[in-house]
Amino acid sequence: MNQASSALSGVFAPVVTPFKSDLSVDADLFVRHSRWLLSQGAGLAIFGTNSEANSLTVAERKQLLDRLISEGLDPARMLPGTGCCALDDTVALTRHAVDAGCAGVLMLPPFYYKGVSDDGLYKYYAEVIARVDSPKLKLYLYHIPAFTGVPITLTLIERLIRDFPETVVGIKDSSGDWDNVAAMLKAFPGFAIFPASESFLSRARPLGAAGCISATANINPAGIGKLCADWDKDNGAQLQQQADAVRQTFQKYPMIAALKFATAHYSDNPVWENVRPPLSGLNAQHKLQLLDELKEIGFGMPGLAG
Amino acid sequence: MNQASSALSGVFAPVVTPFKSDLSVDADLFVRHSRWLLSQGAGLAIFGTNSEANSLTVAERKQLLDRLISEGLDPARMLPGTGCCALDDTVALTRHAVDAGCAGVLMLPPFYYKGVSDDGLYKYYAEVIARVDSPKLKLYLYHIPAFTGVPITLTLIERLIRDFPETVVGIKDSSGDWDNVAAMLKAFPGFAIFPASESFLSRARPLGAAGCISATANINPAGIGKLCADWDKDNGAQLQQQADAVRQTFQKYPMIAALKFATAHYSDNPVWENVRPPLSGLNAQHKLQLLDELKEIGFGMPGLAG
Repeated sequence: MNQASSALSGVFAPVVTPFKSDLSVDADLFVRHSRWLLSQGAGLAIFGTNSEANSLTVAERKQLLDRLISEGLDPARMLPGTGCCALDDTVALTRHAVDAGCAGVLMLPPFYYKGVSDDGLYKYYAEVIARVDSPKLKLYLYHIPAFTGVPITLTLIERLIRDFPETVVGIKDSSGDWDNVAAMLKAFPGFAIFPASESFLSRARPLGAAGCISATANINPAGIGKLCADWDKDNGAQLQQQADAVRQTFQKYPMIAALKFATAHYSDNPVWENVRPPLSGLNAQHKLQLLDELKEIGFGMPGLAG
Repeated sequence: MNQASSALSGVFAPVVTPFKSDLSVDADLFVRHSRWLLSQGAGLAIFGTNSEANSLTVAERKQLLDRLISEGLDPARMLPGTGCCALDDTVALTRHAVDAGCAGVLMLPPFYYKGVSDDGLYKYYAEVIARVDSPKLKLYLYHIPAFTGVPITLTLIERLIRDFPETVVGIKDSSGDWDNVAAMLKAFPGFAIFPASESFLSRARPLGAAGCISATANINPAGIGKLCADWDKDNGAQLQQQADAVRQTFQKYPMIAALKFATAHYSDNPVWENVRPPLSGLNAQHKLQLLDELKEIGFGMPGLAG
C-alpha cells in the first residue's frame, strides 16, 4: 500500500479554542490564532482534544469551520476533529468538513461504551465512510486511549486500510507509547502516522513518520516545524532539545489551561484564560511558576497578536 | 436535609432503544416497550447507558421524548438522561425535559476529559442549573465511573446538595461497589439514592435507598418491582433470589445485546436485535445459551407485544 502521495505531513496544532467570559466561543480570536499558526508553518488540527472540542456542540464546530474558511484560511491546511459518540453526529461533521474542502478529518472512535470489539469499531468507521460516501474523504484515525478508553488496535487499522485504502490514510497516535508508534511505523509503511508529541520526532521521522500533531504546536509551532523538517541536519539534536525543553515545561501543568494561559500572557489578552467546565484554569501559583520556567528557557510567541 | 418528599422512588428501567435495520430509531416500538414497562410498574429512565443514549443525537433524544408524551405516556414517570460532554447539549436536553414535565433528569458528568477536579465538575453542574433556571428541575447525578472515567465523589455530592438542595435531589450509583452505595446512604439521608442493580435492594432498602435503576428492569420489571416493595416481607429473600437469578443470567453476556435479544425473542420481533455501532449484537452461540439458561429459570416477559 502507498497512500503517502496524497497524505498530509508536517506539524499540526490542535488549535486551542477561545471562550468569552460567558463561555461562548470567541470566533474572532479563534480566526486570529489560526492565522498566526498558519503563518508559523503549522497546519490546523482544529477540534482536537486540546481544542476542548468535546465541550463544543456539533453546531458550534460547523460554524467555526465555516468562519475560518469565510476569512480566507486554506481548508487544504485543515484537519478538523469529527469523531463523536453518536454515528449521526460524526457523519454530519465529517460530511461538512469534506464539503468545506478540508484536507482530511481526524476521527476519534465513539468513546462512551467501553470494551467494544474491533468488529464493532470497524462497523462504526465503515458506516461513517459509507454514509459520507465521498472520494474526497481522507480519514485519519485518532488513537488516544487515556481519554477514550477505546484503543485503536493494529488489527483494526490493518483491516480499515485493507478495505478503504483510498480513504483511511493516516493516524494520530496519542498513546504516548513509543513502542506503539514504532510498531505502527513498521506495520504500515506509507500510512501517514503522526505521533502526538514532538519529543518522538527524531526517532519517528527516520522510520517514516509524517510529522506530529502536538498540543504544544499551539505555542511553539515554528520550533517544532523546524525540528520536523531538519531532524537529520547538523543542528537536529539541538532542535530536538529545544523543542523538548518547551514541551517538558508545559507538561508539568494541566495542558489545556497552561497553553491558554501562555497564549493569554504573550498576546496580552486575558480572554484566552477561559476554559469551559469541567476544565479549570491554571491557579495563581502555577501561573507564576510557568512564566518563570518559560523565561528561563527563553521562550516566546513572536508575532502573536492579542 | 430532607428532599425525600418530592423525590422519585421505586424501580426505573433505562429503556432500551430499538433501531431499524438502517440504524434509525424505531419510535413506534420504543413507545410500545415504554408502555409495557409502565404497565409492569417500572418508571422510564429513558436515554441511559443501556438505552445506547450516547449513540443518539440531541435531536433524536428530543424527538423520542416528545413522541412518548404525544402518545399519552406520563412524564411524571420519566427520568431521561441528559448529560453530554458539551455543556450546551446538556442544557438543551435538560431544559427540554423540564419543559416536557419530566419528573427529573439523570445527568452524566461530562465524560471526555479525564482527571478533572471536583471543582470543575461542580462548575459544570452549577452552570447547567443556572442556565436551565427552573424550580421544576430535579437533578439526579449519574455515577458510572467504568464508562465515564469521571467519578462523582461524596465531596462533590455534598457540595451540590448544600448549594442546590431543591434541585440536586438524588443519584444513580452504577459503581457496582456496595461500599460506595452504603457510604452514600449513610452520608446523605433523604437523598434519593438508586443503586444500579436490584441485587443490592435487600441491603440498600433498609438503609433508605429509593429503589433501583437497573438494566434488567427492561426485561424483569415486575419481579424487581415486587422485590423493591416487599423486600421486608416474608417472601423478601425469595424475591431477591429470583431477581438475582435473572440478573446473573444476563450479566454473563454483553448486557445491551442480551437485553435486546431477549426482547426480540419474547416479542417475536427481530428488529429488537439491532444495535448501533460500536456495539455488536449477540452471537449465535450466546443466543442459544442465553435462551437455554432463561428457560431453566422459568423466565418470561408476560404481556410483551411485538
